Amino acid sequence: MAGQTSVNKTNTGNFFEDFRLGQILRHATPRTVSAGDAALYTALYGPRFAVSSSDALAKSLGYEHAPLDDLLVFHIVFGKTVPDISLNAVANLGYAGGRFLAPVYPGDTLSAVSEVIGLKETSSGKTGVVYVRSTGYKADGTEVLDYVRWVMVRKRDEASPAPEPVIPELPDAIEPDALGDAVPLLDISAWDGELAGSPHRFDDYQVGEKIDHVDGMTVEESDHMLATRLYQNTAKVHFNQFTEGKGRFGRRLIYGGHVISLARALSFNGLAPAFHVAGINGGRHVAPLFAGGTVFAWSQVLDKAAIAGRDDIGALRIRTVATVDRPCADFPDKDADGRYDPAVILDLDTWQLLPR
Amino acid sequence: MAGQTSVNKTNTGNFFEDFRLGQILRHATPRTVSAGDAALYTALYGPRFAVSSSDALAKSLGYEHAPLDDLLVFHIVFGKTVPDISLNAVANLGYAGGRFLAPVYPGDTLSAVSEVIGLKETSSGKTGVVYVRSTGYKADGTEVLDYVRWVMVRKRDEASPAPEPVIPELPDAIEPDALGDAVPLLDISAWDGELAGSPHRFDDYQVGEKIDHVDGMTVEESDHMLATRLYQNTAKVHFNQFTEGKGRFGRRLIYGGHVISLARALSFNGLAPAFHVAGINGGRHVAPLFAGGTVFAWSQVLDKAAIAGRDDIGALRIRTVATVDRPCADFPDKDADGRYDPAVILDLDTWQLLPR
Amino acid sequence: MAGQTSVNKTNTGNFFEDFRLGQILRHATPRTVSAGDAALYTALYGPRFAVSSSDALAKSLGYEHAPLDDLLVFHIVFGKTVPDISLNAVANLGYAGGRFLAPVYPGDTLSAVSEVIGLKETSSGKTGVVYVRSTGYKADGTEVLDYVRWVMVRKRDEASPAPEPVIPELPDAIEPDALGDAVPLLDISAWDGELAGSPHRFDDYQVGEKIDHVDGMTVEESDHMLATRLYQNTAKVHFNQFTEGKGRFGRRLIYGGHVISLARALSFNGLAPAFHVAGINGGRHVAPLFAGGTVFAWSQVLDKAAIAGRDDIGALRIRTVATVDRPCADFPDKDADGRYDPAVILDLDTWQLLPR
Repeated sequence: MAGQTSVNKTNTGNFFEDFRLGQILRHATPRTVSAGDAALYTALYGPRFAVSSSDALAKSLGYEHAPLDDLLVFHIVFGKTVPDISLNAVANLGYAGGRFLAPVYPGDTLSAVSEVIGLKETSSGKTGVVYVRSTGYKADGTEVLDYVRWVMVRKRDEASPAPEPVIPELPDAIEPDALGDAVPLLDISAWDGELAGSPHRFDDYQVGEKIDHVDGMTVEESDHMLATRLYQNTAKVHFNQFTEGKGRFGRRLIYGGHVISLARALSFNGLAPAFHVAGINGGRHVAPLFAGGTVFAWSQVLDKAAIAGRDDIGALRIRTVATVDRPCADFPDKDADGRYDPAVILDLDTWQLLPR
Repeated sequence: MAGQTSVNKTNTGNFFEDFRLGQILRHATPRTVSAGDAALYTALYGPRFAVSSSDALAKSLGYEHAPLDDLLVFHIVFGKTVPDISLNAVANLGYAGGRFLAPVYPGDTLSAVSEVIGLKETSSGKTGVVYVRSTGYKADGTEVLDYVRWVMVRKRDEASPAPEPVIPELPDAIEPDALGDAVPLLDISAWDGELAGSPHRFDDYQVGEKIDHVDGMTVEESDHMLATRLYQNTAKVHFNQFTEGKGRFGRRLIYGGHVISLARALSFNGLAPAFHVAGINGGRHVAPLFAGGTVFAWSQVLDKAAIAGRDDIGALRIRTVATVDRPCADFPDKDADGRYDPAVILDLDTWQLLPR
Repeated sequence: MAGQTSVNKTNTGNFFEDFRLGQILRHATPRTVSAGDAALYTALYGPRFAVSSSDALAKSLGYEHAPLDDLLVFHIVFGKTVPDISLNAVANLGYAGGRFLAPVYPGDTLSAVSEVIGLKETSSGKTGVVYVRSTGYKADGTEVLDYVRWVMVRKRDEASPAPEPVIPELPDAIEPDALGDAVPLLDISAWDGELAGSPHRFDDYQVGEKIDHVDGMTVEESDHMLATRLYQNTAKVHFNQFTEGKGRFGRRLIYGGHVISLARALSFNGLAPAFHVAGINGGRHVAPLFAGGTVFAWSQVLDKAAIAGRDDIGALRIRTVATVDRPCADFPDKDADGRYDPAVILDLDTWQLLPR
């Protein structure tokens, strides 16, 4: 028992030099999702969208069961990509082109694969931006989610040569006709506004309309760590106070996806009929969130669209802005120079589906 | 994109003037309960009552499966009523006439309806008391729970005229023969005192007997928020430190039902055979609880009753008093003038069923 | 209603004098485990071992479903023994001879029985050491887990005579051929290193090899209390800040098993292929852990063994050392005099199974 050390068995993550254009990464640890995950997701955020909450209601509309919350699916797929993509990330820069492609039910097993679709060294020479398209699958191969994200990743060695820069063309927004694959054709006559929490439907929302979601939710350290572990997301900055206490912020950083889920749950107050997040057009974590902060949110309808072949549902393009310790009755936003109000932490652009 | 604001899509809750005698409110967001909710409930309170913990044991007695904890059902039904009944409540004044009417199993979908059965403006003219009977249903229409609560609700406009005062007649206690609907006829020969955690049965408890439940449980902010979100209870005072920090207490208030569940879980130590809460005769949240407090409890047997047609089970009427930061070996209670010991936070009167 | 007090209905736990050699204790509250427990376990520790995470993967190897995490099973069985064995314990001294005997799946109901196999009064005359073999069962009688632990228990009365001392002979380690009963014969050709999170297998690990698990996990009060209640473990020191605040440490003690599960989850980084803890050779809680501490861990391969009749799997004997607020890159351990580095909190010796 000589005490030989094995550093090669631990995952130190990929550095910028380790990524190659076109590279395919099959991520570890497939995950069977269950009613247990759905219950925890409810406990973590308190969502009340009726379709994901009630089997009876979901079946009456045409689903097999209540589908899992879209963002729970997103976080689980995202979590799988972390050990391979962003363990050495300095920053998660953005999302684009996200689509939910099939309903996910308790019992489904999710796995994830990513393809490197862009690489660009930053001017400092110390980091580079990696663009990946990540896809979530069920065990039978059904695609459930597909999205692009780009992250700034440290170089292992600053002297490494820069790769040929390739920046993928990303859509400004998902085409409406590409939405809705995760929603079976619904018997929308079964839609019940009282049970859904709002008398409003697709036609009641107007482009330009702003909605203050009113309520605030304070985040505790325990909450965000439970959530992030539930997603098997291993990014160190969320969990390790010993190390983070000595770091840039002196505190654990909250997983950005936690903010997205909080904002979505808060948005029920004003957007109760928006039962499904069908697409993620773009998103930016404007500032970090720390435990003790209270998250508020407001939304604006950016666009409306019918979906070809679907007279049951329509799509609203919705921009959601989340803040910390700042109610949103006056819709805090960017100023004339494009600088965000200092309370803003999230700027998210999604397509959401509503009954017609 | 003119930026038109929509306040009408957010729920500002009902004010006292919005309630009408006889009004029926169908509450939003039906909820399918699952083994995930049962696991979370166990993690939140640590209950050990055997019937709700073990499918095998519950089936041997005559249940289809282990039923969900009665109070989990109560909290979920209660949570649905909050956005319509008590979003503008100043205080939750009391409960009465509560009965559990059918066992609830994982997979059942719960929804709730309330009827306004009483209204009385308070002398200040700023608030009024609203009495509602709330009923929980399964998707097939089976009633699972029925109870009355009354809350003090703010008026929107102090100048609004007072309605004709109507105060419903409420029973001091549920009639024993009306108890037990949530318990199938049991093969009580299968009852196993060792597995149940106590050799005692119905006949071993005496009217007047007091039991100190000994143990204490400290509450963290994260715990009560997880619980209250699990119940999809949206009362703002539980979640928003930014606003509550500026408010009356400077802190988030803990949902009163959280205290009820803590006291019930603590009561296992002394009342292990009381496997089912069958009725809620009355209850009062004597004082608020805040995170960091340690909850203790004691109980007294107020009454005993056979149930017509049931020789498997008997009912104990039990008063449970919970305190904060105050052990209960000397049974802290009201003084001669009817003033509660300052440590008391809950005074609850229930019927509980035990094997004969 | 005379107010007669009943102390005899509450569990004051067994004292040293209450134990008899050969005594059998059937513990209370059987527990049906579910996908909800699995989800909570994931949220509490973030384990990523693929076999317990994915039904699809587990089935492809030969399991009926994804088995529950071995340590979740351990904690639930352990929790049942607490009210009878260690409610009056001063210290949990050690574990030995632990074997996992059958896979546990959601829906199984677990119960526990203990036999007193040793007793020895300590020299102070105030306490004694109780050795018990505890066995966990499914409802059909299948044994799922068997282990010995010994605890120092207070005497009720210091004047009580000491029993004849009996110290059981305990194996230094489980015989390798006794391992693996909880793993069906696997179709190991279906093992997928990418999905499992590591290209390594049994043959890639060398006796003597040390692995720093790199990552750290900070523990919050809420986390460990949720976990310990999930296991229905009633040891008072974990939950009651009012009492513990006045006690030896001034704080709630974290359940030692929580540290074991944290160390196991951290060990994925370096031991990802070790999909099953098959045996617990020994274990010692070297020092207590308190909320706010960040847990790190390292492991060393003590031994390797084939298992008779199994060419699908091999066993590594692994010593895992956990620390608090102390990264493990230099493998903190005992010094030349056998004194532990002050940061060490756990020293655990297990057999773990890997694919060949």
